[in-house]
Amino acid sequence: MSDKAYALFVEQQQARGIRLEDVKARLKELKIETPSWGYGDSGTRFKVFQKTGVPRSPFEKLEDAAEVHKVTGLCPSVAIHIPWDKVEDYGKLRSHAESLGLRIGAVNPNLFQDDDYMLGSVTNSDEAIRRKAIGHLLECVDIAKETGSKDLSLWFADGTNYPGQGDIRRRKRWMLEALGEMYKALTPEMRMLIEYKAFEPAFYHTDIADWGMAYNYAVKLGPQAAVLVDTGHHLPGANIEHIVAYLIDEQRLGGFHFNSYKYADDDLIVGSVNPYELFLIFYQILNAANDEDAAIRNTVDGIAYMIDQSHNIEQKIPAMIRSVLNVQTQYAKALLINHDEVADAAGRGDVLGAEDAVRKAFEFDVTPLLQAVREEQGLPVDPMKAYLSSSYPNDILARGKGGASW
Amino acid sequence: MSDKAYALFVEQQQARGIRLEDVKARLKELKIETPSWGYGDSGTRFKVFQKTGVPRSPFEKLEDAAEVHKVTGLCPSVAIHIPWDKVEDYGKLRSHAESLGLRIGAVNPNLFQDDDYMLGSVTNSDEAIRRKAIGHLLECVDIAKETGSKDLSLWFADGTNYPGQGDIRRRKRWMLEALGEMYKALTPEMRMLIEYKAFEPAFYHTDIADWGMAYNYAVKLGPQAAVLVDTGHHLPGANIEHIVAYLIDEQRLGGFHFNSYKYADDDLIVGSVNPYELFLIFYQILNAANDEDAAIRNTVDGIAYMIDQSHNIEQKIPAMIRSVLNVQTQYAKALLINHDEVADAAGRGDVLGAEDAVRKAFEFDVTPLLQAVREEQGLPVDPMKAYLSSSYPNDILARGKGGASW
Amino acid sequence: MSDKAYALFVEQQQARGIRLEDVKARLKELKIETPSWGYGDSGTRFKVFQKTGVPRSPFEKLEDAAEVHKVTGLCPSVAIHIPWDKVEDYGKLRSHAESLGLRIGAVNPNLFQDDDYMLGSVTNSDEAIRRKAIGHLLECVDIAKETGSKDLSLWFADGTNYPGQGDIRRRKRWMLEALGEMYKALTPEMRMLIEYKAFEPAFYHTDIADWGMAYNYAVKLGPQAAVLVDTGHHLPGANIEHIVAYLIDEQRLGGFHFNSYKYADDDLIVGSVNPYELFLIFYQILNAANDEDAAIRNTVDGIAYMIDQSHNIEQKIPAMIRSVLNVQTQYAKALLINHDEVADAAGRGDVLGAEDAVRKAFEFDVTPLLQAVREEQGLPVDPMKAYLSSSYPNDILARGKGGASW
Amino acid sequence: MSDKAYALFVEQQQARGIRLEDVKARLKELKIETPSWGYGDSGTRFKVFQKTGVPRSPFEKLEDAAEVHKVTGLCPSVAIHIPWDKVEDYGKLRSHAESLGLRIGAVNPNLFQDDDYMLGSVTNSDEAIRRKAIGHLLECVDIAKETGSKDLSLWFADGTNYPGQGDIRRRKRWMLEALGEMYKALTPEMRMLIEYKAFEPAFYHTDIADWGMAYNYAVKLGPQAAVLVDTGHHLPGANIEHIVAYLIDEQRLGGFHFNSYKYADDDLIVGSVNPYELFLIFYQILNAANDEDAAIRNTVDGIAYMIDQSHNIEQKIPAMIRSVLNVQTQYAKALLINHDEVADAAGRGDVLGAEDAVRKAFEFDVTPLLQAVREEQGLPVDPMKAYLSSSYPNDILARGKGGASW
Repeated sequence: MSDKAYALFVEQQQARGIRLEDVKARLKELKIETPSWGYGDSGTRFKVFQKTGVPRSPFEKLEDAAEVHKVTGLCPSVAIHIPWDKVEDYGKLRSHAESLGLRIGAVNPNLFQDDDYMLGSVTNSDEAIRRKAIGHLLECVDIAKETGSKDLSLWFADGTNYPGQGDIRRRKRWMLEALGEMYKALTPEMRMLIEYKAFEPAFYHTDIADWGMAYNYAVKLGPQAAVLVDTGHHLPGANIEHIVAYLIDEQRLGGFHFNSYKYADDDLIVGSVNPYELFLIFYQILNAANDEDAAIRNTVDGIAYMIDQSHNIEQKIPAMIRSVLNVQTQYAKALLINHDEVADAAGRGDVLGAEDAVRKAFEFDVTPLLQAVREEQGLPVDPMKAYLSSSYPNDILARGKGGASW
Repeated sequence: MSDKAYALFVEQQQARGIRLEDVKARLKELKIETPSWGYGDSGTRFKVFQKTGVPRSPFEKLEDAAEVHKVTGLCPSVAIHIPWDKVEDYGKLRSHAESLGLRIGAVNPNLFQDDDYMLGSVTNSDEAIRRKAIGHLLECVDIAKETGSKDLSLWFADGTNYPGQGDIRRRKRWMLEALGEMYKALTPEMRMLIEYKAFEPAFYHTDIADWGMAYNYAVKLGPQAAVLVDTGHHLPGANIEHIVAYLIDEQRLGGFHFNSYKYADDDLIVGSVNPYELFLIFYQILNAANDEDAAIRNTVDGIAYMIDQSHNIEQKIPAMIRSVLNVQTQYAKALLINHDEVADAAGRGDVLGAEDAVRKAFEFDVTPLLQAVREEQGLPVDPMKAYLSSSYPNDILARGKGGASW
Repeated sequence: MSDKAYALFVEQQQARGIRLEDVKARLKELKIETPSWGYGDSGTRFKVFQKTGVPRSPFEKLEDAAEVHKVTGLCPSVAIHIPWDKVEDYGKLRSHAESLGLRIGAVNPNLFQDDDYMLGSVTNSDEAIRRKAIGHLLECVDIAKETGSKDLSLWFADGTNYPGQGDIRRRKRWMLEALGEMYKALTPEMRMLIEYKAFEPAFYHTDIADWGMAYNYAVKLGPQAAVLVDTGHHLPGANIEHIVAYLIDEQRLGGFHFNSYKYADDDLIVGSVNPYELFLIFYQILNAANDEDAAIRNTVDGIAYMIDQSHNIEQKIPAMIRSVLNVQTQYAKALLINHDEVADAAGRGDVLGAEDAVRKAFEFDVTPLLQAVREEQGLPVDPMKAYLSSSYPNDILARGKGGASW
Repeated sequence: MSDKAYALFVEQQQARGIRLEDVKARLKELKIETPSWGYGDSGTRFKVFQKTGVPRSPFEKLEDAAEVHKVTGLCPSVAIHIPWDKVEDYGKLRSHAESLGLRIGAVNPNLFQDDDYMLGSVTNSDEAIRRKAIGHLLECVDIAKETGSKDLSLWFADGTNYPGQGDIRRRKRWMLEALGEMYKALTPEMRMLIEYKAFEPAFYHTDIADWGMAYNYAVKLGPQAAVLVDTGHHLPGANIEHIVAYLIDEQRLGGFHFNSYKYADDDLIVGSVNPYELFLIFYQILNAANDEDAAIRNTVDGIAYMIDQSHNIEQKIPAMIRSVLNVQTQYAKALLINHDEVADAAGRGDVLGAEDAVRKAFEFDVTPLLQAVREEQGLPVDPMKAYLSSSYPNDILARGKGGASW
């Protein structure tokens, strides 16, 4: 059935003028980084449910990540979080990754779990705490050197819960100082990806609250700084794909932390709440991928796709597989947009025609396409089934409960 | 200065036709319950900051609560959470409360921190887990009997994170079954207060998601069931005072869990984000307090005012004092509304006049009034100062870190 | 190609245990009412853009609606709005509809465009205005009798812009009085569908603000009253499908006003912002369609599907065609859910499996299925193309500009 | 009573270390611009209620605005909207203003009410329409020259309703081109104030959707461009005072369009929904007013305070008086913040103390202060009463209905 399905799919897309070889080439290039912390226990403020079989060390997290890559072919790198993934010998961690066919991806400093950071880390009014926080940032640059990482993903929980608690403008300047000091420590091939978040855990103001603030810091810092878009870090109604297009046009989109939300920062599986939004994000990216300006195309090529989710009630590894498959699916659909058709309709003022040309691509079933690509890559046609029918899910039960967690 | 200020205040309000003796009488009747869990450590999903001096037992929590009552005169009862406040001998807990001039207030079952409840408690598809959860509800009724509590505050974290995870309608029926079984166990003077919440920790659907669902259950159960409004459990923009007025008119408003939010369920100090909203809630309540229908007036009299907040970065006891003072302040302001003036303007279609008649009351400084009331009650004129200058804040440091927490 | 595609589709679905004959039967039964006002000019508060060719009378609106039905086979009835569709002889309007293969659907009173209603219609504090408004409601019942309509769709713009402007509880009682008087006038086969809206045009409080209020009125009125869910009338984040499931379970879901929104009541084409949400609404409906309780099944059968949108910048008739096709598409996808598969996974606590069983159905391309159904019904395989290539779009240009509008 | 009240107020504030002469000086310097369009009829998309007595020409609008200034002393300038305020001889309009003790304030181009602009004005894909729109912008610069205006307030309704309808990045570039061309036409003392809006009338994407986009354009244009913050143009939960502080620190806050909202862009009277938010905005401004950096202080001095509201159901002139009084009230309260007290508490990590030091200022009743200032300025002590008891409200009834409107 799947051969027939693919043959039909090919016929169908060729009739629409879609060049499937290009589509498949792009699909084969897609890389989605998974986060080490996504393999450990996590939860809400009300409860962390401990699961049997979660990894007990950074090394075991890599092993789980390797399983995701093995069945999907999409996840050759793993983001780490310091100090959650602190080890004595980062060279060893790197080697372990390489032995599993992986590499260490973005390094994520953690500036929110030390008691000192209760009222802020790099924006704390206490200079000693600011210095400590900057020290941690610099430590992470060193770790990146040792692990061969190119990206530093920066999320700051810094903010206040009440008016008056902190001087907003002074904190803004401290933030720039800290980022500036870190920036200077970067090697030429490294990037700083600056994340923003509307709220939580700070509930009055968050120092880097939206893309505009993150972008402004990036511009002030220099070309090695860019914005990291976490899809769950916006206020209700925000048009994320607009922000994405805007940042690409300014050559300042550095990457994504993918997840889904219906209410606040729900951290659900990407693509599970509004898959069309994810598709529309890729539509903007792919629209820019063909820009006549090479700088824009380079920006698109440099986008780091990363998962950042907490799977509180799901099985960890299958949840990660589902996540990356959802990203792949929407990316594949977006590749079926005929941009000329959209532009023609839009140019005629045909609002309905333009909308249809976009949405139509979403409505295709890309299963035959993805299966064909997987076959060509020597991957299991059904990655989830391949994982679930392997011995791994059972093997890790021996780890017991109480493994890694936040 | 404060005598002059009060004399002026009296003159001012009398000129407006406000009967200050009534205002003062109502202020003296105001009671705000504080929650035992508000004295322990709490935090966000990212971090619980441990504070020195938090209580190490339910008994010490009551002692802290007694301090709040001592300086404010507003907080003669304390809500408890089971199993956080589980003790061997509830008679002893009750006696301890009484010895401190307190009584045990609402009993709050906890149906979200047991591993069994990961996919639901009373709405779990596993009958054994539902039975266990109902058992806990019934246990709480028993505890209420032992502690002399009249109210059972029911918040269910039950819900789902993804479509399909649970059958929404079947869960709805299980919820009714559980509530019905508990209802039958109530003694005639007890009440069930049913809380609702839009989201968190469930991120797709929450079984009791809004006031309409809580209300509908209450109606089906009978006259001893009512709705509990947590001010932080609404979607953005919700008009909470409208819901309050609506529920009073249906004689189904049972009480409040007070706290503030700017974004989601931020659990900040009540009155700190939008004090005018709190004032407007009291406006609706006081508007109904004079209703010609005795049933409406009884509903108003039965409203339980309770704090439900987590003070993650504030000092615990002062944060509780601030909270109850904020409630008292807005209540006092609302008592200054001249309802005839509002009704006259509204009746003439004078939109601006009616709005002014409400807002005007908010703009008065009620400090002289509150100080006068406190003096008449033999309370410290400045409760916060009284607490901070007592030896208690220092005494409790001996408890050390690592006391009670979620 | 389409034959092959359908053959493959059949094979695929049969392998999943989907009974395609049932699916097709349900698709053929689907009816979506279009609104007469959707064919005229509309806009935002900033501007109404006048289009050439909009109908100049209620009769011409029916003619446009007939075109939509001709190409889709989905829209045999047309909702009317009084006084926008006021005519001297409703028998004539009815005959005109019948001559076009249509019938008059829901009658919609208009209680917001008369100067008298500035501060409310049925909840106005002026009794004369309330009487006038009730008179209009009764007039609409009479019109329903003359046009053979069964449903009265009731949306009230009533509300206030400021605290104090109106007495919320008194207005609540006036609302019930008005609804009660109208209810008594209904013939036994008529229904009152009560709509709710969070805000706009009232910006402080809206008298019927949410489903809970609409539901409560319906319960008080009797079995001929039910709730009308306008998909655009919710606060950000509301889980509409949860409300839908809840109302079905209470046998009080009367129907839908379909449209899409990203921000507020944007009134965009249904299914254009988050098609998955529309699919999930149908998932809940279809889950109830097989309920063992006949009363639940009857509720599902009685749901009136109606479009309520304003196409400000789109071509009117094509926008309506697109709308009903989007509804049909998501309905078709929802029909492919294997409910047993969902229930099995959910019963095992397999969160990911249950989610997958739902989402999987969404990912199928239902184009071959819909084309097959259309062919069987003697309809054009591509309704939009059929309309655009007909002479109608050109013919109506002769009407000129300045036709019907709000 | 008011003398006693003021004497007490003075005593009270001096005890807190507040320098009342400074406070009064700042209050006397406060200027709030009212908009010409605020005096005409307006409404929602559902209905414009026509009022008797609204002005019939730009000249009469100025006369109404002069009444607001006469009783408040706060409103010496009036913003105009082109073409709503188009006149043959702008010199005559300017003279008329001057004869009334007024001057013409910001000039507001209108790029949303011409049929050509249905799919965009400066971002329309049709070059001729873009040229026309730019022509209008340049015309407005000319009008500013003739009327002696210094500010051009730019709000663009440009955006799209559906994905694909427009090329987001291309539109972004067209926006910059248009703004750049206008910028070049400015005289050295003129400013471009760039407004942003999250949504409405565009419901998918708005070309200038948030402060970050407006800010970025301003930076690219040069020092004469700044951001205009309309308080109603944000997504739910946005921390407006944070944005204000941020923009001041970047020396790019140009001014405000004041109004209130609870849901979306409700355009209610400023300070009527959440007066504390308005107070907190002024807190940030006044915190910067004492900055050691002269550039920051200059930014604060240059902030244009403007009302932008539509009074759909209120009496027009009283609604404007209420609006400017609300702004004055919250500004006065913010002037009572003891910034050293805030800073001291914050510096000690005393979260509650810092919050209290801010909120405390809000709780004072500033009526005695404002009355004293008015007396010193020779203004009526109660501006609203002064207006309502004048002959003007009655005189203008002779204008009849059907005056100026959108």
